[in-house]
Amino acid sequence: MALWSGRFSESPSEAMQEFSSSLRTDLMMWREDIDGSIAHATMLAEQGILSRSEGEALIAGLHQVADELASGRFVPVDQDEDIHLAIERRLTEIAGPVGQKLHTARSRNDQVATDSRLWLIRRLDELRLAAIDLLRALLERVERDGEVVMPGYTHLQRGQPIFFGHHLLAHAWMLHRDIGRLADARARMDECPLGAAALAGTPHPIDRRRTAELLGFARPCPNAMDAVSARDHALEAAAAAAILMTHLSRQSEELVIWSTEEFAFVQLSDGYATGSSIMPQKRNPDAAELVRGHCGRVTGDLMSLLMLVKGLPLSYNRDLQEDRGPLFDAILTAARSARILAATWRTLTVRADRFDLRGHFLLATEIADWLASRSVPFREAHHVAGRIVAHCEGRGIDLGGLSTEEWRAFHPLLDGVQGWLDPAKAADRRASLGGTARSEIAAQLAALGALYAG
Amino acid sequence: MALWSGRFSESPSEAMQEFSSSLRTDLMMWREDIDGSIAHATMLAEQGILSRSEGEALIAGLHQVADELASGRFVPVDQDEDIHLAIERRLTEIAGPVGQKLHTARSRNDQVATDSRLWLIRRLDELRLAAIDLLRALLERVERDGEVVMPGYTHLQRGQPIFFGHHLLAHAWMLHRDIGRLADARARMDECPLGAAALAGTPHPIDRRRTAELLGFARPCPNAMDAVSARDHALEAAAAAAILMTHLSRQSEELVIWSTEEFAFVQLSDGYATGSSIMPQKRNPDAAELVRGHCGRVTGDLMSLLMLVKGLPLSYNRDLQEDRGPLFDAILTAARSARILAATWRTLTVRADRFDLRGHFLLATEIADWLASRSVPFREAHHVAGRIVAHCEGRGIDLGGLSTEEWRAFHPLLDGVQGWLDPAKAADRRASLGGTARSEIAAQLAALGALYAG
Amino acid sequence: MALWSGRFSESPSEAMQEFSSSLRTDLMMWREDIDGSIAHATMLAEQGILSRSEGEALIAGLHQVADELASGRFVPVDQDEDIHLAIERRLTEIAGPVGQKLHTARSRNDQVATDSRLWLIRRLDELRLAAIDLLRALLERVERDGEVVMPGYTHLQRGQPIFFGHHLLAHAWMLHRDIGRLADARARMDECPLGAAALAGTPHPIDRRRTAELLGFARPCPNAMDAVSARDHALEAAAAAAILMTHLSRQSEELVIWSTEEFAFVQLSDGYATGSSIMPQKRNPDAAELVRGHCGRVTGDLMSLLMLVKGLPLSYNRDLQEDRGPLFDAILTAARSARILAATWRTLTVRADRFDLRGHFLLATEIADWLASRSVPFREAHHVAGRIVAHCEGRGIDLGGLSTEEWRAFHPLLDGVQGWLDPAKAADRRASLGGTARSEIAAQLAALGALYAG
Amino acid sequence: MALWSGRFSESPSEAMQEFSSSLRTDLMMWREDIDGSIAHATMLAEQGILSRSEGEALIAGLHQVADELASGRFVPVDQDEDIHLAIERRLTEIAGPVGQKLHTARSRNDQVATDSRLWLIRRLDELRLAAIDLLRALLERVERDGEVVMPGYTHLQRGQPIFFGHHLLAHAWMLHRDIGRLADARARMDECPLGAAALAGTPHPIDRRRTAELLGFARPCPNAMDAVSARDHALEAAAAAAILMTHLSRQSEELVIWSTEEFAFVQLSDGYATGSSIMPQKRNPDAAELVRGHCGRVTGDLMSLLMLVKGLPLSYNRDLQEDRGPLFDAILTAARSARILAATWRTLTVRADRFDLRGHFLLATEIADWLASRSVPFREAHHVAGRIVAHCEGRGIDLGGLSTEEWRAFHPLLDGVQGWLDPAKAADRRASLGGTARSEIAAQLAALGALYAG
Repeated sequence: MALWSGRFSESPSEAMQEFSSSLRTDLMMWREDIDGSIAHATMLAEQGILSRSEGEALIAGLHQVADELASGRFVPVDQDEDIHLAIERRLTEIAGPVGQKLHTARSRNDQVATDSRLWLIRRLDELRLAAIDLLRALLERVERDGEVVMPGYTHLQRGQPIFFGHHLLAHAWMLHRDIGRLADARARMDECPLGAAALAGTPHPIDRRRTAELLGFARPCPNAMDAVSARDHALEAAAAAAILMTHLSRQSEELVIWSTEEFAFVQLSDGYATGSSIMPQKRNPDAAELVRGHCGRVTGDLMSLLMLVKGLPLSYNRDLQEDRGPLFDAILTAARSARILAATWRTLTVRADRFDLRGHFLLATEIADWLASRSVPFREAHHVAGRIVAHCEGRGIDLGGLSTEEWRAFHPLLDGVQGWLDPAKAADRRASLGGTARSEIAAQLAALGALYAG
Repeated sequence: MALWSGRFSESPSEAMQEFSSSLRTDLMMWREDIDGSIAHATMLAEQGILSRSEGEALIAGLHQVADELASGRFVPVDQDEDIHLAIERRLTEIAGPVGQKLHTARSRNDQVATDSRLWLIRRLDELRLAAIDLLRALLERVERDGEVVMPGYTHLQRGQPIFFGHHLLAHAWMLHRDIGRLADARARMDECPLGAAALAGTPHPIDRRRTAELLGFARPCPNAMDAVSARDHALEAAAAAAILMTHLSRQSEELVIWSTEEFAFVQLSDGYATGSSIMPQKRNPDAAELVRGHCGRVTGDLMSLLMLVKGLPLSYNRDLQEDRGPLFDAILTAARSARILAATWRTLTVRADRFDLRGHFLLATEIADWLASRSVPFREAHHVAGRIVAHCEGRGIDLGGLSTEEWRAFHPLLDGVQGWLDPAKAADRRASLGGTARSEIAAQLAALGALYAG
Repeated sequence: MALWSGRFSESPSEAMQEFSSSLRTDLMMWREDIDGSIAHATMLAEQGILSRSEGEALIAGLHQVADELASGRFVPVDQDEDIHLAIERRLTEIAGPVGQKLHTARSRNDQVATDSRLWLIRRLDELRLAAIDLLRALLERVERDGEVVMPGYTHLQRGQPIFFGHHLLAHAWMLHRDIGRLADARARMDECPLGAAALAGTPHPIDRRRTAELLGFARPCPNAMDAVSARDHALEAAAAAAILMTHLSRQSEELVIWSTEEFAFVQLSDGYATGSSIMPQKRNPDAAELVRGHCGRVTGDLMSLLMLVKGLPLSYNRDLQEDRGPLFDAILTAARSARILAATWRTLTVRADRFDLRGHFLLATEIADWLASRSVPFREAHHVAGRIVAHCEGRGIDLGGLSTEEWRAFHPLLDGVQGWLDPAKAADRRASLGGTARSEIAAQLAALGALYAG
Repeated sequence: MALWSGRFSESPSEAMQEFSSSLRTDLMMWREDIDGSIAHATMLAEQGILSRSEGEALIAGLHQVADELASGRFVPVDQDEDIHLAIERRLTEIAGPVGQKLHTARSRNDQVATDSRLWLIRRLDELRLAAIDLLRALLERVERDGEVVMPGYTHLQRGQPIFFGHHLLAHAWMLHRDIGRLADARARMDECPLGAAALAGTPHPIDRRRTAELLGFARPCPNAMDAVSARDHALEAAAAAAILMTHLSRQSEELVIWSTEEFAFVQLSDGYATGSSIMPQKRNPDAAELVRGHCGRVTGDLMSLLMLVKGLPLSYNRDLQEDRGPLFDAILTAARSARILAATWRTLTVRADRFDLRGHFLLATEIADWLASRSVPFREAHHVAGRIVAHCEGRGIDLGGLSTEEWRAFHPLLDGVQGWLDPAKAADRRASLGGTARSEIAAQLAALGALYAG
């Protein structure tokens, strides 16, 4: 019989019980529910709302319920409706009638808001650590292979020679901002809903600062109705996770492309690739593909949450129960994805020998820059370079195949340009702040290393 | 040891195994996997690719695996990687080395495509039945309460008097189109991928029409690469479910609003409402709220799927494994939502007495229509009606409070209009095709009844 | 002064006028608004609701407004609020007070529903033609280059040799289903809302079948409230467009990858590529990239629409005005994308010489299939093939480098397998229904050709 | 002829030109493009890369182009391809060949990244101001009507009496966090991409700190490849806007519901409502409805952007051009929505007389709290209150209709509870931190007032 059933002549139908049960998702946050109840009971006793012995009995009982849940001895059932009522039921079995006093000065609305926010903060901390570890894996890779010269791409077309470290650091900076977003989201949601009760606070002389402190929150939520109605903290966390996932999807796409036989820049370790049931030669980049796929999943979770909240009047509406499924999935999926990518980066092999850069007009920009730095208007310089490339293509040669006379014929100032046309030198010349030059890579490595030292 | 590991020097890492396992979702379609394998084995034996006794051994073994899965005696483990390999492993334990011949002339790519499409078709059939039953619940409600006069709303403002049946039938027609969409999606996807192998078909002399027929498909997929790469059938099914859910969310919103104390048009039965842990007088429309919330969830699933497929080159990519989670969730959530709403409609009470329509200017349009049908240009008629409403509001009376002289003063042609100003008569006058008149409600009830008779 | 202002003491604020104006989007459907009004006026006169001369005056006036709009002589202004009122205003200026009779027996609710549905049907027809033309471009390409042998990919790893036509036809079949979805959506929405009035029909003796017929609809909407409230036709159309766009994005991804220097399977024509302002050698696959990007845009449009409709009570709510922006964008973007891809396919060059298939273990599956067709259990055959690939990789040779003795040593039944190891022969052996064999390509070409002959 | 056409034998097709042009969206940020170019030219001259007179000529020319664009004398045409090339073309017409030197040491990739980020930062500042003003409008409303007693709702069912200020402040705190999100997003993106060139920096001796400073950025982007590839700043801004819009949609839903005839808590001013073309008595809450609709639009924009970025390899891809449409729309729509809601709140009338709270069991919780504060276990107290409500409902009376004896019969400790049962007193008793008591409202008003004083 439901705890709220005093006035009802009939119980919810079985179909309704099954439809509305949130137990399956709730079970993921049983520990947070217990922690919240222990803090609540502690405060109630400290404030004299319960006697000291009542408080102690409740806390001891809650610890026992936690043990039973952890060990699997206590398993909530569907008739419990949700995790809060399941725990309260078991508590009352253990501690006797005092268990029915635990709910004094709170409501399920502030209770579930507290539980899920506590869960979220804890898992966000884990996600941030996973993102930091992935960033570190990239920095390690920069240290190992950062000076390999490779083509820099735009439009997936070879553009200019760069050092591999430049490319990897671009991913690292994206993660740096993701980590900042996760930290901002966490700081903004660091408010405890407990004590908001149903929507209006409570007449009991509770101490909300104390429960907030006991649970590790920075402060209590400043408005009771906001505390039970708002889900923007969930939206912000899911959005930060979705944005992070776009970055992971971009890394993944590159890993997939780079591990093709055509590109073959990297070889994934056997531990993070799989084979085919029918094509024995395959070495499939499954981890990267799955992470790329997870990007859609986390975005879908975010969309679910945004649509869920749209147009809901204050305060609590039952729709909000459905926030946990997508929210939990988004945070956990992002963390798992970051972890598997970190392992992938750490265990792959960069095939430095594959980066053959001479025959591909990658240095055409050098010609334009050479001329522009000799006062030829950039647009004209660019056209000259374009004509040279067209000329070489027509003759089936590369830039190295042009004679000094031919260079001069295209433009008299091109005399001597051949010496410039070396990929590594070209990359090192790009020493503007944030450019691909080794000096700039070293500076970035130092900056990020200082922030994220192991 | 993975079945594809012939060439690998190292097994997948544990982290990778856990990350890439699809077992949890796959378990939902074990029966479809067995059905597909039985059809495959049957055909292989009929074609002489396997001997008759080999075929029989495989089929008997598959039936035993099915029994063990149904009874819980066989439980796949994470090392099995996916449901296909789990079943093949158990089959080989039961049937011996012949089990290793089952995979002749097929690949996991066509196998999983077959399983999930078969699952989808079966669940779509159930969803369609659930939608049909909800439509029937609405028709039953029309039969019972269709002649109750209520305000018709636009902008949630009272507009014109209508019969309740008119309103309910609007929802019914939306469902009618949903049912059509589900049927179209099902018909379009009614093609069997089995035999497409990895992406190119097989050199073995298989009979794809036969396996399609054995599994109840209308025909085989016409192109092997399409068969293993395409997911538009999943997208279409999820889109149909998401559109259906918008309709259910609109019904839900109305149930929520109508069961407020302020509107109080309906009273939900105790079986489909819940109470509050802190406010004993509450009768919360939880079922409707949850369905409204599920609308976001199914749309999120659709978004996941669309984003998942975006930009994937042909043919199979591991990302596609992630289609099952959101797809299965979308279809099952929609079916559960339709079922709970059908029960909600069937068990609620319409509070006909609450529809007090006289004092609300609901009949103002009648004045305009009265004048327009007497050759007053509609725009002028509309202005006259507006001025009358403003006049009444200013004096704090309703239209019934105007004297014959006052009517005449507003417009000489208004003589006699008072007799028109009855809600039920006004509704019955709207007898244009599809209008709210009882005759039109009866016609629609007959039309839908003919399509969806019990 | 707004046409509905009879009762208001104050006009909408300027801010409100600007905020709520839908003119910019509405202007895209002025022709549909005029067509709808002409049909309405025709019917009103035929039914005797207007006199014959009134009807003629209205129709003549509407034709003049159409001319003025087409030539730019009449330009609606923001104070007109929307296109319907703009046209009615201009009509009244032209035709005099009879213009105020046009709105008899209709409302803006059914008027805008009619306009936008008419617009949608017309544009869907154009989108379907664009999709058909793209499908034809693929068929033309199959005819030209269908017998080029290329690697078939899974996980973007080379799997088995296929004919290019097999790959192209996979895309063609996806489009075939897209075309079906567009047709189904169009058929389902082929109902005319005109005459539904605000939400309840009208007491005037209108003939809704006649206006439906005049406008080319199959039938009138069966329920007036549904007619003005429903947007599932917009959702279905946008969903069909979004699904189509995922297919176009997959083609685009392949075009981007195939036109890299590393793959270099195709060369885009100068007409459908662009260069770089700084890297003169670039030939960027911009059309394909933009189409891939548009996939996100159209999905975003669909998301907007689904979220827009969520939780709206019946009947019309002003939110619904916002359906046109995303809907129109989705349909037009999809059509433009299909057209540019058709041109891209028609003008690119397939670099048949690039498909060097011998050195890549692409034929490893042949070994497994050779053994499996000689009664070796498939799993064992697969392992043997895997070991052979590992052996060759270790020695740095390809399959052609193995001696007859070595083959035999791996498995006695492998005697003679060398003759099988030819890419084109291997592809042609896959003659199961829908396989990559030339016979199957021809059959599909015939089937699709019959459906979509020029 | 395109500026990059040196090597191409053929111009882009007309279809391609039209398809790929971004001019229409670009025109929104012409001022940012000019500002960026002026900063670039200034720095080039300061660094001696251009002569002082060249720099002056460019800057003067750019100012002239700005004047011409502002006055409409210069209108870019489709052949200009994008705004950057349009402005450079016009500059060269004005300033002569020196115009061709402007592009030295930059690329369109860093140029467009700079323009759009500058645009975004400026518009985010405006959006933040709009959100702050809306928050202020709510605070003003609290000051005016904060002490009106109203029902507090959960599940849209009346729960407990609250002061209106409590409800309004819940919305205010949500906006407070929105404002924080906008500020965080702005701070994180406050890095200047200019000088990143195509993807690798430049060999020219530029000073990126100087251009960042000239444009008002906090610092330059630390990695050139990240600078041109990343769009997470756009995603974060759009996500913050989408979350803000969910809050506005919730306010809007309440305004729609509260302005129904059934609730009638507020009356919108004529300036922010509209009438009906057919139902003269209507006063439609159009502004609120449109804002609610815009919530879907902005979420759709976010979806577009997330999907756009998914799976893009570094660095620039043409897909990214499509970020501006949805991004610009999201930010501008959110700002317009916040502004119209602020005006709506400021001009509506609260109908304090409508809040009749006595007859609705709103005070049932008081009974439970009365008992719980007298040591009755909360669950038991809750049941007692439920039985009392059921008893009253059965007899058709409210709580005021119970005699002292009846109270005692339900529970001896209920003696004296009648005095508690006053809505305002009940609300004022809820003085826990953040509760609905007037003291707590005053405290919140002070706290927010201090942050957002006018």
